[in-house]
Amino acid sequence: MDGSGTGRLEAFSDGVFAIAATLLVLEFSVKEGANLGNNLLHLWPAYLAFATSFLTIGIIWMNPPFCVETMARVDRTLMFLNLLLLLTVSFLPFPTRLVADSLRTHNGERPAVLAYAATFVVMAIIYNVWWRYASSGRRLIAEGVPDRAVRAISRAFDPGVPLYGITFALAFWSPIASVAMTFAIAAFYLPSAALFDRVTD
Amino acid sequence: MDGSGTGRLEAFSDGVFAIAATLLVLEFSVKEGANLGNNLLHLWPAYLAFATSFLTIGIIWMNPPFCVETMARVDRTLMFLNLLLLLTVSFLPFPTRLVADSLRTHNGERPAVLAYAATFVVMAIIYNVWWRYASSGRRLIAEGVPDRAVRAISRAFDPGVPLYGITFALAFWSPIASVAMTFAIAAFYLPSAALFDRVTD
Amino acid sequence: MDGSGTGRLEAFSDGVFAIAATLLVLEFSVKEGANLGNNLLHLWPAYLAFATSFLTIGIIWMNPPFCVETMARVDRTLMFLNLLLLLTVSFLPFPTRLVADSLRTHNGERPAVLAYAATFVVMAIIYNVWWRYASSGRRLIAEGVPDRAVRAISRAFDPGVPLYGITFALAFWSPIASVAMTFAIAAFYLPSAALFDRVTD
Amino acid sequence: MDGSGTGRLEAFSDGVFAIAATLLVLEFSVKEGANLGNNLLHLWPAYLAFATSFLTIGIIWMNPPFCVETMARVDRTLMFLNLLLLLTVSFLPFPTRLVADSLRTHNGERPAVLAYAATFVVMAIIYNVWWRYASSGRRLIAEGVPDRAVRAISRAFDPGVPLYGITFALAFWSPIASVAMTFAIAAFYLPSAALFDRVTD
Repeated sequence: MDGSGTGRLEAFSDGVFAIAATLLVLEFSVKEGANLGNNLLHLWPAYLAFATSFLTIGIIWMNPPFCVETMARVDRTLMFLNLLLLLTVSFLPFPTRLVADSLRTHNGERPAVLAYAATFVVMAIIYNVWWRYASSGRRLIAEGVPDRAVRAISRAFDPGVPLYGITFALAFWSPIASVAMTFAIAAFYLPSAALFDRVTD
Repeated sequence: MDGSGTGRLEAFSDGVFAIAATLLVLEFSVKEGANLGNNLLHLWPAYLAFATSFLTIGIIWMNPPFCVETMARVDRTLMFLNLLLLLTVSFLPFPTRLVADSLRTHNGERPAVLAYAATFVVMAIIYNVWWRYASSGRRLIAEGVPDRAVRAISRAFDPGVPLYGITFALAFWSPIASVAMTFAIAAFYLPSAALFDRVTD
Repeated sequence: MDGSGTGRLEAFSDGVFAIAATLLVLEFSVKEGANLGNNLLHLWPAYLAFATSFLTIGIIWMNPPFCVETMARVDRTLMFLNLLLLLTVSFLPFPTRLVADSLRTHNGERPAVLAYAATFVVMAIIYNVWWRYASSGRRLIAEGVPDRAVRAISRAFDPGVPLYGITFALAFWSPIASVAMTFAIAAFYLPSAALFDRVTD
Repeated sequence: MDGSGTGRLEAFSDGVFAIAATLLVLEFSVKEGANLGNNLLHLWPAYLAFATSFLTIGIIWMNPPFCVETMARVDRTLMFLNLLLLLTVSFLPFPTRLVADSLRTHNGERPAVLAYAATFVVMAIIYNVWWRYASSGRRLIAEGVPDRAVRAISRAFDPGVPLYGITFALAFWSPIASVAMTFAIAAFYLPSAALFDRVTD
C-alpha cells in the first residue's frame, strides 16, 4: 500500500464495480416451456434495465479514477463513505431484476421501479457526500490540481440527485418512462466525462 | 511477486473480499405473485443481514491492509491462516441468506441466526490467530513499526471473539437481537479503524 | 492511474473478462430425480457451449493486452467503446445458458442459437470499431509501434464479423452446426494470437 | 504489461481463482419447509465438498506465483495451457454442487463423485503439462533459478496425477472415501508448499 492509500481504495472499488456489473446478467430468466423466440423478443424491458444499470455502474467507475486522482490521500471518513457507495452499487442487481421481471409480466411495475429509482437516489446522494467531503476546503485534494478543476467536478455532480429524484417521482405516474429517463441520464453523463480530459490536461 | 509476497497475498485477499461482498445481493429473493410493494417493505430483515455482512467484510478489508503493511514478509503458515480466513469470508453469503429468509418467514430463526453467529465466531477466532501468529515476538513485523503500534493493533483485536460469542449466546434468547448486535459490532469497529491513521503517522 | 489511463482500462476490463468467464459455470443445471450418470453424459451441449464461450472470452482477453500495449493513451471515446464491449462480454452467460438448455432438451434450439450467434456478431462489430477507432490515422497508437504491426493487427480483425455472420445464418439451417462453427472460430483464432509474439519482438 | 507478460498472466489467473473459490458458496442449498437446524447439521457433505474445493483452488493458487516467478517470460503456448487450466478451475463449482447434493440425498453418489474426481484428474494433467512445457530444457525459466530448484518443483508435481487417479478409482468402490481422499490430498500438499520458501531463499 502506498502511503496515501488511494491505490488500494481504487483497486477494491474497481473489483466491486466490475463484479456488480457482471452479476447483472445472472438476473435474466425466461419462462420455461413457452415459445423461446417470442420470449426473447419480449425480454426487452430486461435488456433496457440491464443496459441502464451496466452503463450507470460504468459511468460511476469512469469518474472515481479521475476524482481519486485529484486526491493526495484518503482518510478514514472517505473510506467509510466509499464503503457505503459500494454497498449501494453491489445492491443494484436486485432492483434491476425486479424492474426487468415486473415490466415483462406487467405485475408490480410501480413498486419495482420505485425501488429501482430509490436505489439511484441513495447512490447519487452518497456519491455527492463522498465528493463534497473530499473537496470541501480542498481537504484531500492534491496540490497540483487547480481550483477551477475542483469546481468543474463539483458542477458535474450538481444535477445528479435532482435528476434521479425526478425519476423517482416519475415512477408514480409512468414506471416505464422513469426507467427510460434513468437510461437517458446515463447517456447524458457519458459526454460529461469529458471533464476527465480537461482535468488531466 | 515481490520478495516478501505481501503484495500478492493482499491482491488475492482483496479479490475474495470484493467478490464475497458483492455476491451477498444474489441471496435476495421475493415471493412470486404476491404484492411486490408490501413484499419489499417486509424484506427489512434481508436488508439488515445484507448491510451487516457487507459492512463486516468491508471492515475486515479495511484492517488487513494496515496489518499487512506492518509486516516485512509473509510465510507459509500465514498464507495458510489467510486461506482459512478467506474460506470463512466466502462462506458468509450462505448464512446471510438463511438469516434473511428465516426472519422474513418467521421459520427457523434460531438455527439460522446461530449458524450466522457461529460463522462470525469462527471468523473472529481465525483472524485473531492470524494476527497473533504474525505479531508474536514480532515474527513478521517490519522493523520500522514501533512496539506500541503492534500493541495497539493487538488491543483492537481483543474484543472481537468475546463480542461475537455474546451474539451467539444471544441467538438462543432472541435471534433478532443477535443480528442487531452483530450490526452494532460492525458500527463499533468502524471508528476503531482510526488505528489506521495512528500507525501510518 | 498513470497519465495515459491504459493501466486502469486494462485492469477493469480484465476484471469483467475473468468474472464473465467464471460465471458461465453457474448456468449449468441437471434435472432433479433423474439418473445422474446419464444426465451428465447428455449434458455435452452444455459442455460445448461452456467451452466455446470460455475460450472466446479468453481469446478476446489475450488480444486486448497487446492491442492496448500498442497504444500510447486512451481517450473518452475508446473508454465508451470499451464499456460497450464489456457489456456484450458480460451478457454472454445468458445466451450460453439458453443454448445449453435448448440443445439438451431439443426445445427452442433455433431461437437460442440465433441469440447466441447474434451476441457474437454484436461483440465482433464493437470490438472492430474499438480497434478501427484506436488505429485509424494512428490516433492512439504509440510511436514505437511500426506501421506493419498495426496493419497485421487490422488484418487479424478482418475475418471476425463475416465469420460470426455465417454462424448466425447457419443457425437457421442447423443450430448445432452453428455452435460447432463458433467453437471452431475460437480454435482458429488461438494461433492467430501469434501476432502477439510478432509485435512485441 | 511488462515485456515478459508474466504480470498480466498472474493477474487474470488470480481473478479466476478468487472468483471460482468464492462462487462455490452459491451452490449451497437447504430443503424448504423442513427443520432448518437438522438440515444444517446434515449438510456436512456440502461443507466437506466446499472446503475440499476451496482448499484445492487455494493450493493451486499458492503454487503458480512461485512457479511463474521462476519464469523469465510467457509464450503463446503457455497462455493457451493456462487458459485450459483456468477452464477446469472455473468448472469446479459444478461438480462440487453435484457431490454436495448427492451425498446429502444419497442419490446418484457414484456418478457425482466420479465427475468430481475426473475434474481433478483433468486439472492435474493440464497443470502438469503446463509446468513440463515451461520447465523442459529450461524453456521459460529465469536464469537466476538454480537447476535443483526446478527439479524440486518437478518432483512436487509428480504425485498429483496418480493420486487423483486413485480418487477416481476409489469412487467406484466408495464415493465418500474418494471425497475424503481428495480432501486429504489438499492437506498433504499444504506443507509441500514449503518449496516456496526453499526456492525464494
